[in-house]
Amino acid sequence: MPILNKDMTLCISLAGRPSNIGTRFHNFLYDELGLNFIYKAFTTDDIAGAIGGIRALGIRGCSVSMPFKEAVIPLVDEMEESASAIESVNTIVNESGRLVASNTDYEAVAALIDSHALDTSASVAIRGSGGMAKAVVAAFRGAGFDDVTVVARNAAAGAALADRCGYQFAADVPTSGASVLVNVTPLGMHGADEDALSFTPTQIAAADVVFDVVAFPSETPLIRAGRDADKRVITGAEVIALQAARQFERYTGVAVSADQVQRASEFSRATP
Amino acid sequence: MPILNKDMTLCISLAGRPSNIGTRFHNFLYDELGLNFIYKAFTTDDIAGAIGGIRALGIRGCSVSMPFKEAVIPLVDEMEESASAIESVNTIVNESGRLVASNTDYEAVAALIDSHALDTSASVAIRGSGGMAKAVVAAFRGAGFDDVTVVARNAAAGAALADRCGYQFAADVPTSGASVLVNVTPLGMHGADEDALSFTPTQIAAADVVFDVVAFPSETPLIRAGRDADKRVITGAEVIALQAARQFERYTGVAVSADQVQRASEFSRATP
Repeated sequence: MPILNKDMTLCISLAGRPSNIGTRFHNFLYDELGLNFIYKAFTTDDIAGAIGGIRALGIRGCSVSMPFKEAVIPLVDEMEESASAIESVNTIVNESGRLVASNTDYEAVAALIDSHALDTSASVAIRGSGGMAKAVVAAFRGAGFDDVTVVARNAAAGAALADRCGYQFAADVPTSGASVLVNVTPLGMHGADEDALSFTPTQIAAADVVFDVVAFPSETPLIRAGRDADKRVITGAEVIALQAARQFERYTGVAVSADQVQRASEFSRATP
Repeated sequence: MPILNKDMTLCISLAGRPSNIGTRFHNFLYDELGLNFIYKAFTTDDIAGAIGGIRALGIRGCSVSMPFKEAVIPLVDEMEESASAIESVNTIVNESGRLVASNTDYEAVAALIDSHALDTSASVAIRGSGGMAKAVVAAFRGAGFDDVTVVARNAAAGAALADRCGYQFAADVPTSGASVLVNVTPLGMHGADEDALSFTPTQIAAADVVFDVVAFPSETPLIRAGRDADKRVITGAEVIALQAARQFERYTGVAVSADQVQRASEFSRATP
């Protein structure tokens, strides 16, 4: 990487607890593609001041993470459908002073539903009721799925989320099973729940597609079980890479290949 | 320079028309010293929003250039003597959310008066009445000089500046001459006035010390004439390097050697 210069375009992220992944992902690609950009993660205790700073300093793009995804809504100039559908922003693009908000998690899930050619008449069970579950459920709604069950431990949140999209809520996957199983809980994620399987072997056996939004590790117990049972699998690594690629393309106007995204993702996950 | 990481400390500059010099100077030294910092120049049409962004994003330092040197005064939390003496800020340090303003041009001139051991009883003629002239005149006042004449084409500005420090104003250097000649006008600077000599050969012959604040080129007609006449010379390159080194040390807490500053200055002036 050369010494910085005054004309570099700055992109940033705002998160309660920044990770190094976005910073490494974007700067890896800037370097590889020879773009005069830099990217750096920030945190803040004044989200309005930070968004004001993006305007005043001409910062080109801002990736938004917890706990700011809803707080930025009144601070931007335009909400795209991907963000307004779920009242959650993860991407702000500064178009010459006009801040345009979108949600590339929603866009990435929608794109994966499309590229994996999921059948919109299939029965779907989505486990989870948090912010990312909102994006996933709305993406299935946007893609035209009608037979979707939201499964959640938190009945109030799960029922509200299902209701919002005209779907049903249940405490567990219907005994008849579902042909598409989607996990949007921390089950299987690095940490306390890393050995947990988010759907039972019976449920997996009855399904055609297994979709895990958990990205760390890239091979969760659910993905492993899906592969072992010869199911079609969609991984959290695909979601995170695709949403990051979309942010990258929106900030820079430059398209990236699957191979470039793959290598940038691997670089971004490697220590330090 | 390695790929950026989330923990890098950002320092910036704010100027109406940013040059590349600060960005190259600071990043050269970060690289040389292995500091986890980055520096980038910005402009803004919303100085309050930009300063608010410095607070909200935890930007560590900000170098302030024209036309913002006075506009930032009501936006900071503390004015050090170097800035309040001339109501002009060129440096803001963010001390855990508390913005402390100073003027390293003033500090650099004061340090050069000291390190070149100028005699405070000497007669001094300072040519100029702009922002930098304010810093220079105040630094001579602060150092204890009494016999100072402010020389300026703009009689109103020159007289006001002289008056402010209890000095006299004159349309030209006294016919008796002055033992310290200081140029703070654009005479001799790259551009339309690059061949102009800011003091006459007779005035130079009668002086002991010739001090040119013009830094581009590093060898102005005044400096050349001073050297040719065997006078002690103080150059604008010394001022700019010293003030930048002070900013660097305040932002990073790391001291730099004269050699490092010299090499960073040369790098910063080289294209691109």
